Amino acid sequence: MPVDPNAQIEITAYQSVPPFAEGRIKDQRVRWALEEIDRPYRERLIGGIFEDKPVEYLADQPFGQVPVYKEGALTLFESGAILLHLGEQDERLLPRGAVRRGRAISWMIAALNSVEPTLQTLVVLSVAGAEQDWREPAMDAARPFAAKRLAQLARALGDRDWIDDSFTIGDLMAIDVLRAAPIAMLAAHPNLAAYVERGTQRPAFGRALAAQLAAYANHSKGD
Amino acid sequence: MPVDPNAQIEITAYQSVPPFAEGRIKDQRVRWALEEIDRPYRERLIGGIFEDKPVEYLADQPFGQVPVYKEGALTLFESGAILLHLGEQDERLLPRGAVRRGRAISWMIAALNSVEPTLQTLVVLSVAGAEQDWREPAMDAARPFAAKRLAQLARALGDRDWIDDSFTIGDLMAIDVLRAAPIAMLAAHPNLAAYVERGTQRPAFGRALAAQLAAYANHSKGD
Repeated sequence: MPVDPNAQIEITAYQSVPPFAEGRIKDQRVRWALEEIDRPYRERLIGGIFEDKPVEYLADQPFGQVPVYKEGALTLFESGAILLHLGEQDERLLPRGAVRRGRAISWMIAALNSVEPTLQTLVVLSVAGAEQDWREPAMDAARPFAAKRLAQLARALGDRDWIDDSFTIGDLMAIDVLRAAPIAMLAAHPNLAAYVERGTQRPAFGRALAAQLAAYANHSKGD
Repeated sequence: MPVDPNAQIEITAYQSVPPFAEGRIKDQRVRWALEEIDRPYRERLIGGIFEDKPVEYLADQPFGQVPVYKEGALTLFESGAILLHLGEQDERLLPRGAVRRGRAISWMIAALNSVEPTLQTLVVLSVAGAEQDWREPAMDAARPFAAKRLAQLARALGDRDWIDDSFTIGDLMAIDVLRAAPIAMLAAHPNLAAYVERGTQRPAFGRALAAQLAAYANHSKGD
């Protein structure tokens, strides 16, 4: 069981988040990767998602987000940077050959910078535009940017199980990004919907999700 | 002079873009990094930014964007993946020690996934909302998300010249991302404005920009 209070690797996570965000916070990506390679880690819970972060935390994570990853003298932030580090340590996450390695990393960065931002725009408009007249027309105008990226991703994936011959950090990131896509937008591409299903049915994903949810549940019991 | 038709490294770029996009297309990041380490590269110009890309190109770049990077059997896409590859080859872009290396990579990914998306949302709303009543209120609502990230980045940078003791791919990416920030938003943080100025005054940045603009100018002369 990777969650172990005596583990050398530490990741930060929130103690509590609103129900709609449970399972969706980015420590899930790192927990998932650690589960894939059976690396034990301990959790450091840093309060609620909306609480101000102490200055010491901002020294590790300038944007006040989770997760921060610590391992000895090494401190990393941003899920992409952490997955890259874990991939370098284990070829079950990142193949060793330069060509396959380059492909996995290109896909991981594409998920972070070409796909996820188009979905984040929809989230920002949905939240910031709550009960505003402009919300629907603005979201209608922004939706095609996200739909285009999903269509391009669907075409590139085709009928393969994974982007490359085996599961990599490219798939892990792409699948976690796609989990935040509006349901109808994902359903428009059955191969993408199946890809997300395939990824989230991996035992490591399930164990990671259970660990994240357990942290929230333990906290609410303690209140 | 890094642009060399016989170079082993090839990058793709557009032949033409609208005036407002000149100097802002992402091959600039890769040209800049190559100039910093004096690595020659050849250009493959792939037509105008709005032209449909041939299927062969989509096999290399599923989203039809530039740049694609080729070096022997290696094909990479996404500026972040390419900068990482170049950093691994030269410590002038990415220090060798695990701690400093991790810091530079964390910052590069933060620029791509925590800062740039908030600025891209403003671009999407500005473009898709042209002449629409909802554009201004939607942009007003989205702007604080970007302003918050810039304030966090400004606090983290403080009065240092670079994020770490020396210039890295973390700075290169952060500075190129900040170049797209609305002028007033950047000016609100004099240390960030100075950081962008410091980066863009590096001779390698200037040579890279001149090369990108020369490609556009050569094409328009040929018409």
